[in-house]
Amino acid sequence: MSADFSINIRVYYEDTDLGGVVYYANYLKFMERARTDFLRQAGFDQGQLLSESRRMFVVSKASIEYHLPAVLDDWLAVTAKVQQIRRASLLFSQQCWRVQQRDESSASCANVEEGDLLATGSMLVACLDADTRKPCAIPQNLKMVLDR
Amino acid sequence: MSADFSINIRVYYEDTDLGGVVYYANYLKFMERARTDFLRQAGFDQGQLLSESRRMFVVSKASIEYHLPAVLDDWLAVTAKVQQIRRASLLFSQQCWRVQQRDESSASCANVEEGDLLATGSMLVACLDADTRKPCAIPQNLKMVLDR
Amino acid sequence: MSADFSINIRVYYEDTDLGGVVYYANYLKFMERARTDFLRQAGFDQGQLLSESRRMFVVSKASIEYHLPAVLDDWLAVTAKVQQIRRASLLFSQQCWRVQQRDESSASCANVEEGDLLATGSMLVACLDADTRKPCAIPQNLKMVLDR
Amino acid sequence: MSADFSINIRVYYEDTDLGGVVYYANYLKFMERARTDFLRQAGFDQGQLLSESRRMFVVSKASIEYHLPAVLDDWLAVTAKVQQIRRASLLFSQQCWRVQQRDESSASCANVEEGDLLATGSMLVACLDADTRKPCAIPQNLKMVLDR
Repeated sequence: MSADFSINIRVYYEDTDLGGVVYYANYLKFMERARTDFLRQAGFDQGQLLSESRRMFVVSKASIEYHLPAVLDDWLAVTAKVQQIRRASLLFSQQCWRVQQRDESSASCANVEEGDLLATGSMLVACLDADTRKPCAIPQNLKMVLDR
Repeated sequence: MSADFSINIRVYYEDTDLGGVVYYANYLKFMERARTDFLRQAGFDQGQLLSESRRMFVVSKASIEYHLPAVLDDWLAVTAKVQQIRRASLLFSQQCWRVQQRDESSASCANVEEGDLLATGSMLVACLDADTRKPCAIPQNLKMVLDR
Repeated sequence: MSADFSINIRVYYEDTDLGGVVYYANYLKFMERARTDFLRQAGFDQGQLLSESRRMFVVSKASIEYHLPAVLDDWLAVTAKVQQIRRASLLFSQQCWRVQQRDESSASCANVEEGDLLATGSMLVACLDADTRKPCAIPQNLKMVLDR
Repeated sequence: MSADFSINIRVYYEDTDLGGVVYYANYLKFMERARTDFLRQAGFDQGQLLSESRRMFVVSKASIEYHLPAVLDDWLAVTAKVQQIRRASLLFSQQCWRVQQRDESSASCANVEEGDLLATGSMLVACLDADTRKPCAIPQNLKMVLDR
């Protein structure tokens, strides 16, 4: 795996179901956390974006393939990569890996070369005007950051 | 059990955890569903309350005892009873029972005489001004309905 | 919409997010509830299937398109229809509609002719041996029921 | 606040409800994450405990007071402290604080001196035999670690 942006996520009881594995809808939560932190490290807090410019990002299409199940106590690396920048939407390509946790101090840095690929997702995220819920252009300064 | 207000809830995969039982936080969801429907049948949709009078109900104290676990496919009856009406809050007493499902047509009518008591909760629900998040008086017409 | 199997779901606080609408991952929960009840009315409780024949159904691919948001207090009809029966998997086609609630007594019967289509999903559900998590054939008696 | 064990948690979209704040049941999830990590750093992975000695911890009583709401993007510190060690249960005292995030590298170290106290919880956690679901004694080696 390349040096895509990724975050680490621990699997807790709340994430599992009676099959003993992570419930399928919860991967969408994990992937949203990765997208949110991806935008945050690019300088865009979604809460701020909402309160300051009344724009919000909402998923308009999601597809996900499940390869292997995650289980309790697993340490995951979830990636977020912008595949395509459109006028009013972003296409994200995302992966969820099970990785070895190296050491506590480097918690924020994923290392997935030797992990298991658990799930892959493709998420079309639309930029909406929060009041009208109509599509609107991606903020120009975000576009600039992503184009780099 | 007396003729308290109750709703029926089916236990699905999403509600369970790897212990094979309903995850402990989810009983709070079930109990909120019962309070919401209790208010609805009294004529008070929370969405409407929020948009029309900018009031919302939020839980300020919750305590819950877990007696027996609910499992997949269980058919539950969750009760909601106002124990005490204060100026700006309501104290709810709630129970979660596992019951036999009689027949589909009477889905909305719980029958818990012969069920198992799974959990009991006590919920202090405050009425807030949605904009300031300060406590405010329970709407007078709701009070009248509850006092009957 | 045709006479597909469907269930009704009420939108509660727990389902919403700060955007004021149902959180995107929760549609997967709603669709699973519909599949579960579809199998149940065909005579197949998943809990029973697991304990008696050690088989479980897990989603291996999910795709979902979001058309319109559901909001608090909405009354939904969520459909489940088997699009394709394979040896070890079922392809479900599903829809989530906002409908008018006719009357309480007919709670279990959805009526969606005049509703709004909120989301459409396509779910590939694999049949697994619960112990090995390897794919195994759909139970023959389920196949017979679905083929009818 | 003393030097209790604590973990940091970021508030994401999934945690919020339409009131714009963290949904009340989700604090129970946050507090469970803290208890789980508390046990983990004491050398007790719950997944391992389950598979090796068929013991599991389940909450038998939970009470929680909500003081201030957490909102999107908040950085929380959630504490877990064993208040009392009984034969077959542990009484946890827990707090949820909103704190300033100092810097990424010290992500695992909470600093709550100047935070806002959002919620306090008291959780009675029973040790069960996973097969019979009967109470059983806290593992002796865990007791020794906690007694230190």
